[in-house]
Amino acid sequence: MITPAHLPYGGIATFVRAPLVEPQGSWRTDVAVLGVPYDIALGFRPGARFAPRALREASLRSVPPFTGLDGQTRLGGVTFADAGDVVLPSLEPELMQARTTTAAQALRERCTLPVFLGGDHSVTFPLLRAFADVPELHVVQLDAHLDFTDVRNDTRWSNSSPFRRAVETLPNLVHITTIGLRGLRFDPEAVAAARARSHSLIPMTDVQSDLPAVLQSLPRDRNVYISVDVDGLDPSVIPGTSSPEPDGFTYAQAMAVLAATARHNRVVGLDLVELAPNLDPTGRSELLCARLIMETLCEVFEASGHE
Amino acid sequence: MITPAHLPYGGIATFVRAPLVEPQGSWRTDVAVLGVPYDIALGFRPGARFAPRALREASLRSVPPFTGLDGQTRLGGVTFADAGDVVLPSLEPELMQARTTTAAQALRERCTLPVFLGGDHSVTFPLLRAFADVPELHVVQLDAHLDFTDVRNDTRWSNSSPFRRAVETLPNLVHITTIGLRGLRFDPEAVAAARARSHSLIPMTDVQSDLPAVLQSLPRDRNVYISVDVDGLDPSVIPGTSSPEPDGFTYAQAMAVLAATARHNRVVGLDLVELAPNLDPTGRSELLCARLIMETLCEVFEASGHE
Amino acid sequence: MITPAHLPYGGIATFVRAPLVEPQGSWRTDVAVLGVPYDIALGFRPGARFAPRALREASLRSVPPFTGLDGQTRLGGVTFADAGDVVLPSLEPELMQARTTTAAQALRERCTLPVFLGGDHSVTFPLLRAFADVPELHVVQLDAHLDFTDVRNDTRWSNSSPFRRAVETLPNLVHITTIGLRGLRFDPEAVAAARARSHSLIPMTDVQSDLPAVLQSLPRDRNVYISVDVDGLDPSVIPGTSSPEPDGFTYAQAMAVLAATARHNRVVGLDLVELAPNLDPTGRSELLCARLIMETLCEVFEASGHE
Amino acid sequence: MITPAHLPYGGIATFVRAPLVEPQGSWRTDVAVLGVPYDIALGFRPGARFAPRALREASLRSVPPFTGLDGQTRLGGVTFADAGDVVLPSLEPELMQARTTTAAQALRERCTLPVFLGGDHSVTFPLLRAFADVPELHVVQLDAHLDFTDVRNDTRWSNSSPFRRAVETLPNLVHITTIGLRGLRFDPEAVAAARARSHSLIPMTDVQSDLPAVLQSLPRDRNVYISVDVDGLDPSVIPGTSSPEPDGFTYAQAMAVLAATARHNRVVGLDLVELAPNLDPTGRSELLCARLIMETLCEVFEASGHE
Amino acid sequence: MITPAHLPYGGIATFVRAPLVEPQGSWRTDVAVLGVPYDIALGFRPGARFAPRALREASLRSVPPFTGLDGQTRLGGVTFADAGDVVLPSLEPELMQARTTTAAQALRERCTLPVFLGGDHSVTFPLLRAFADVPELHVVQLDAHLDFTDVRNDTRWSNSSPFRRAVETLPNLVHITTIGLRGLRFDPEAVAAARARSHSLIPMTDVQSDLPAVLQSLPRDRNVYISVDVDGLDPSVIPGTSSPEPDGFTYAQAMAVLAATARHNRVVGLDLVELAPNLDPTGRSELLCARLIMETLCEVFEASGHE
Amino acid sequence: MITPAHLPYGGIATFVRAPLVEPQGSWRTDVAVLGVPYDIALGFRPGARFAPRALREASLRSVPPFTGLDGQTRLGGVTFADAGDVVLPSLEPELMQARTTTAAQALRERCTLPVFLGGDHSVTFPLLRAFADVPELHVVQLDAHLDFTDVRNDTRWSNSSPFRRAVETLPNLVHITTIGLRGLRFDPEAVAAARARSHSLIPMTDVQSDLPAVLQSLPRDRNVYISVDVDGLDPSVIPGTSSPEPDGFTYAQAMAVLAATARHNRVVGLDLVELAPNLDPTGRSELLCARLIMETLCEVFEASGHE
Repeated sequence: MITPAHLPYGGIATFVRAPLVEPQGSWRTDVAVLGVPYDIALGFRPGARFAPRALREASLRSVPPFTGLDGQTRLGGVTFADAGDVVLPSLEPELMQARTTTAAQALRERCTLPVFLGGDHSVTFPLLRAFADVPELHVVQLDAHLDFTDVRNDTRWSNSSPFRRAVETLPNLVHITTIGLRGLRFDPEAVAAARARSHSLIPMTDVQSDLPAVLQSLPRDRNVYISVDVDGLDPSVIPGTSSPEPDGFTYAQAMAVLAATARHNRVVGLDLVELAPNLDPTGRSELLCARLIMETLCEVFEASGHE
Repeated sequence: MITPAHLPYGGIATFVRAPLVEPQGSWRTDVAVLGVPYDIALGFRPGARFAPRALREASLRSVPPFTGLDGQTRLGGVTFADAGDVVLPSLEPELMQARTTTAAQALRERCTLPVFLGGDHSVTFPLLRAFADVPELHVVQLDAHLDFTDVRNDTRWSNSSPFRRAVETLPNLVHITTIGLRGLRFDPEAVAAARARSHSLIPMTDVQSDLPAVLQSLPRDRNVYISVDVDGLDPSVIPGTSSPEPDGFTYAQAMAVLAATARHNRVVGLDLVELAPNLDPTGRSELLCARLIMETLCEVFEASGHE
Repeated sequence: MITPAHLPYGGIATFVRAPLVEPQGSWRTDVAVLGVPYDIALGFRPGARFAPRALREASLRSVPPFTGLDGQTRLGGVTFADAGDVVLPSLEPELMQARTTTAAQALRERCTLPVFLGGDHSVTFPLLRAFADVPELHVVQLDAHLDFTDVRNDTRWSNSSPFRRAVETLPNLVHITTIGLRGLRFDPEAVAAARARSHSLIPMTDVQSDLPAVLQSLPRDRNVYISVDVDGLDPSVIPGTSSPEPDGFTYAQAMAVLAATARHNRVVGLDLVELAPNLDPTGRSELLCARLIMETLCEVFEASGHE
Repeated sequence: MITPAHLPYGGIATFVRAPLVEPQGSWRTDVAVLGVPYDIALGFRPGARFAPRALREASLRSVPPFTGLDGQTRLGGVTFADAGDVVLPSLEPELMQARTTTAAQALRERCTLPVFLGGDHSVTFPLLRAFADVPELHVVQLDAHLDFTDVRNDTRWSNSSPFRRAVETLPNLVHITTIGLRGLRFDPEAVAAARARSHSLIPMTDVQSDLPAVLQSLPRDRNVYISVDVDGLDPSVIPGTSSPEPDGFTYAQAMAVLAATARHNRVVGLDLVELAPNLDPTGRSELLCARLIMETLCEVFEASGHE
Repeated sequence: MITPAHLPYGGIATFVRAPLVEPQGSWRTDVAVLGVPYDIALGFRPGARFAPRALREASLRSVPPFTGLDGQTRLGGVTFADAGDVVLPSLEPELMQARTTTAAQALRERCTLPVFLGGDHSVTFPLLRAFADVPELHVVQLDAHLDFTDVRNDTRWSNSSPFRRAVETLPNLVHITTIGLRGLRFDPEAVAAARARSHSLIPMTDVQSDLPAVLQSLPRDRNVYISVDVDGLDPSVIPGTSSPEPDGFTYAQAMAVLAATARHNRVVGLDLVELAPNLDPTGRSELLCARLIMETLCEVFEASGHE
Repeated sequence: MITPAHLPYGGIATFVRAPLVEPQGSWRTDVAVLGVPYDIALGFRPGARFAPRALREASLRSVPPFTGLDGQTRLGGVTFADAGDVVLPSLEPELMQARTTTAAQALRERCTLPVFLGGDHSVTFPLLRAFADVPELHVVQLDAHLDFTDVRNDTRWSNSSPFRRAVETLPNLVHITTIGLRGLRFDPEAVAAARARSHSLIPMTDVQSDLPAVLQSLPRDRNVYISVDVDGLDPSVIPGTSSPEPDGFTYAQAMAVLAATARHNRVVGLDLVELAPNLDPTGRSELLCARLIMETLCEVFEASGHE
């Protein structure tokens, strides 16, 4: 018998029904979640501002601990907190960034693994700034797009530029692996700049033709921050995103990359961005994204010997 | 300057950002909110189970205190708590009722005015049971339908029967005023039973032809429980409901009835039911319902001398 | 107690659960319903092809007999049949018209009042042809548009022309009263032609400023065919239509016109056209239209001494 | 030339335009269809109540007989009846079950292969009760979930428990093969109970890694009842379902399992459950499900030597 | 006969099929239209960025000249140009403002009446800056909200502040009349500041209780810029807007205010803002807004003696 | 840095922001686009009339030239024009065809590669008539359906018949290769007629089992017209189509066929039909179709030595 509890549509929607905390409060957990409902830096279809709440609601179908068909328990004993959302200004990018970095730092001081719910991809820059003290930081980025552009439509802070801003700002950010690249159009200057820094640019065609080789090429024994842009996944899997690109990751392929990353490295942070729940009336986009986060956490905590 | 705070789509969605409490916890406020996400007792289009969360989200555009164009402050100093949702079973009506009554009683012991977020209209029966000790209880019901049927489709617990069950159970429930009745089809036995108890059955045509007379006919100086079935309002105003009926209340007409009720009586409880957010992709149904609740609270607390 | 029966979403959707008959079969009822799921003659947003089925489904919330709040029974003893839909060709307008006229004639021979479910307004021309033998036929048309244009976009059979084709073809069609006219744009030739035939062209502003006078001006003691174009109603009441025009009929105003027409004339046929259920995800458009039909039938059969 | 007939959106929507019959009437066909529009036993997003009608409408694009590209005719001469829907109570699970079992028994007496259109998966329990006389009954279940839980949220009748209730009640139900299992969370007690009964629990990963082996492991020469929970399929294929799980069956994979089951066994009954048309505004969920049913019937009747 | 032309869904969507021009090009018309697809300054539900295109598409059902039921022609001989949209940066408010002012100035130099399609209401500030040379400029604003807040959520450029910024910047802006004010919450500092400048703040209740008096109170013989925030209208009329407020203008009431303004003043510019087509799947919001613009133009050009 | 330009939702939506031209005007480009917003010849769910505009809007995310991850530029120097839409009558198929053929001929005279945006598949017949002078014309058709039926529902002009009409009319149309065929139902007469003409009928199962063999079987060194019916693609990839069929092309499979066709032949024309944007609220259908067109153009112009 399963213990009585709220059905998924019942109860206040904190992430996996975790206690609600203040970022600067006195608490300590294994995992803490922070939302960054900011989407004015994207250039096409808005809605990522609604993602943190949608992910919290969807997470209520994936509340740990989990028991698999094999009877193994996952995330047993792992503790969670929901630190709410960053209080955002209406418009000012630099103020948004300052507040986001501050809140992310507070999380890092209080939990083992902070999980960030975007928001468009521009939020990854202020999030990464909270990891300025991590030695030799690596980023593993699932994404259809490079997001390494210097300036787009007169703006340095758009969702095309977070990693460019990050490498400019963070000397400790030594390497980025971007997996899932595809599409007709790349910014040549951005590609050149990424290559000049020896970033690993892995096109989606590589994932489809030889996934084991891609998994082999991932970082090992590194401090890794994982950034999941949901447009890395195929639009048939995640229709709710601003800029869908065909021929993306299946859920299983994405999980293979995330699991390999988690199992062979020290994951210091995780974000999921560019989910636009308003663009998918079937509701499956947020349900699958919430599960993707939880399954990644399983891998992280199993790799770290927890459980 | 307005103090920085979350934009409406930011932060955890408790009702008007009130602290989250346990129904049985140790707290004390003027207003406390309880959700009852139960909709399996309705007979047409489901979705009212999603209403408590939708109302919480929508309430974030109506966080008190309010200052009107005239500079008067409303709900200043009135305190709020959000007691979450009743933990519901999947199917068993009587277990649902027991838990709902228990939670509602806990609220009554801890606040001046409990506000209940349905759910379909069947939840009003267990809610009213929590008021069994109120002397000479009156109900004012805004509704297109009578909801006084004995049995419908083999069931005594459907959303057509809450008030029938209530009068059978609660000797102190002395009178019901139902306003907004309309439609081609009434259950003759139910009408006769209500008339036999001298209930006031006010058709919507009366509201439209002579609203002042309707307002005059409302209870005065009574202990009143207000039950707002959102299908009392016109479907163009609130499209998100299971069983829309044309020619209903405008928002202003509904507020006139609610204000007159609040100002001339002691309001002991309030529910809003039959909102189905999934049936209105424009989102205005929950936004207007949340405001209707807040504006009714303004009237209640101004009548009680608060503020 | 209400007798057990299907909930509205249960059971095969014939109109008001009437027996399914063949137009040419051997049956005899008071009312028979025929669908004409044809919408390729409209010039803007398609979807009226889906209306007959949507109206059948919606009618299941309005199955007669009805008992009002006053205890009076309506449509008691009135019998119904559902003759299904006309079998339509893909494209050929004249073949569509021939089949529609034939089916409508079959209905007229077997029932007192045939009810036709469009389709776009072009179907009214072949429907009216089935009434070629009615002496001094009058039409009462609720509509935002005149629909009396000779040729539109190179076509004589569009939904702008049904009444023009009808008066050319039917010598017995002596008069048309069009109520609800509004909008910035009229076809001057069509207006002139209608005025030359002394049609009554009643703008919506007349309905709003003096409804009693409009009701007085309706035909009396005539053989009347009623044609309800749902864009006559306000778009907030019936959003599901190809070409919405603001400031239209409320449900109550439309019913006042229909009731006055029914009570003072011999209604020989009724159609409801231009409902596009696909354009209204709230579902209220078809629910209100089904009720409008049923309430009009109440008026017709009460006027005829039935019940 | 294709014979004139209704376009798919025309005519009354019985399943594949079959004659409408009463379950207890005097008729005899190869196939008969019964709807069970019941969804209050599910624990997440309602809408399966709308599935029987949606499947009937969608079936009108798949009316047999079929002629393939190879010129072979399928389902030629196979006769169909549509027995409508079970008349359901509003709430009482045991009354729903009694009526459903009775209607299903009536179908079994009158047709070779009854096809049941759910509803949520809880309806499979009363449906299976109608097969209590079948010797050594096997079930082949396509499903993401085990649905073998004893009690969930205080209820023994939820859509998580149909097969648990069935094995408790039906001594002749000797074996269940469940294919497509996946997800983070299983009820350990349910898994243990199923394994104790030697049920075949086949995870979706087996289907993806070695479909031929899965097909080999299916029952042979048995009396088989097939239960298709549409959440077995991938959410990108069937978005319209309450609880989508990623990495499910493609249509072709599902058909491979169904065809292998049909070709090597005696199929005694078939249900399709958990389709929620309201959750998929593209309409493809019901279109594909209707076709899945028809293609499975092709396999069943070809295996039985019919045609 | 109506001249063959594109059906409304055919052809490239320029506003009322006007020629497409560059703002700085060499052209001269009576009316010119400019889009400002900017919505990142609003604080709730985005989508106004999609309004200029939606209004262009919707305008194709309202292409002048118009002939009324009375045979009078409107907008005959009035010439139109569509100047496209301002090229906007991704994020920088002041750069957006500079480009918008520049483009609006270019329009003013080339046409009699520029019409601006927002965008959220923040765009009205840079638009008004293009009228810095108009002597004694008056603004008539239809709006549920005052939009005169100094700072909101740390931002001076939000859609709550356009008129505050305008009066600070434009000495010639002598008076603002705001009509339709309603809601529970006003910014007291903003109200005080507007009253200190003797702005006319007309609540919606005044419109409903005595429209003729409101019309009398409008400016006369002034240079007037009209700003229509579509949330001034009732949400049942225009559901497609970020922040709906109940009890707003009907279409007829809004047109009465706009007509009275146009007929008694010199209208120098017009904007329509806060339309969010993505929030209204019925499509009627943009259709009614396009017509509102065209009908206002009729009034302006008839008042100016044109036609 | 990417040059400032409109964000995808800004500016007038011509195809890839190409200059707007009249079909009969004096211009000359490499590529010209013509819309045919006609969908009344389809037999199920309308909406293809909205496709030309939707494709234009979607194309604004795919404006050439493109630079790939490998730094190669595609479509550099290739010039584009947008010739708008054919002016269509409301109903008359033969008039539609005449105008479409005329406009297509005008395009052919002025550009190297005309691209046609349907509309339902019936438009391909009049489009092909504009290629009557091409020696030994081959057609490569991606499609789930054969579209070679003689008469359907009494009509010779439906979207099931374009290629039948074409081979009857065009002696130079020597061969058709149809790829992606699937479904339960084929018109035996149509299959026989196509086989009698030695058309290549390639079922989707061949694509899935041996794509290289399919690519080998395509025409080589021919004059080829490519017709892409979007229901050839899988419904999870392109949900927005009238008649979805499961197990269709992935985007990559479709591109493999299109690329192989383009690289080994002389492509004389291209159409994309049966896209119904109204059936896919996620918007991805048109986004992927626009990209499919652009990527095909890359292949065509690279094959021709351009760029």
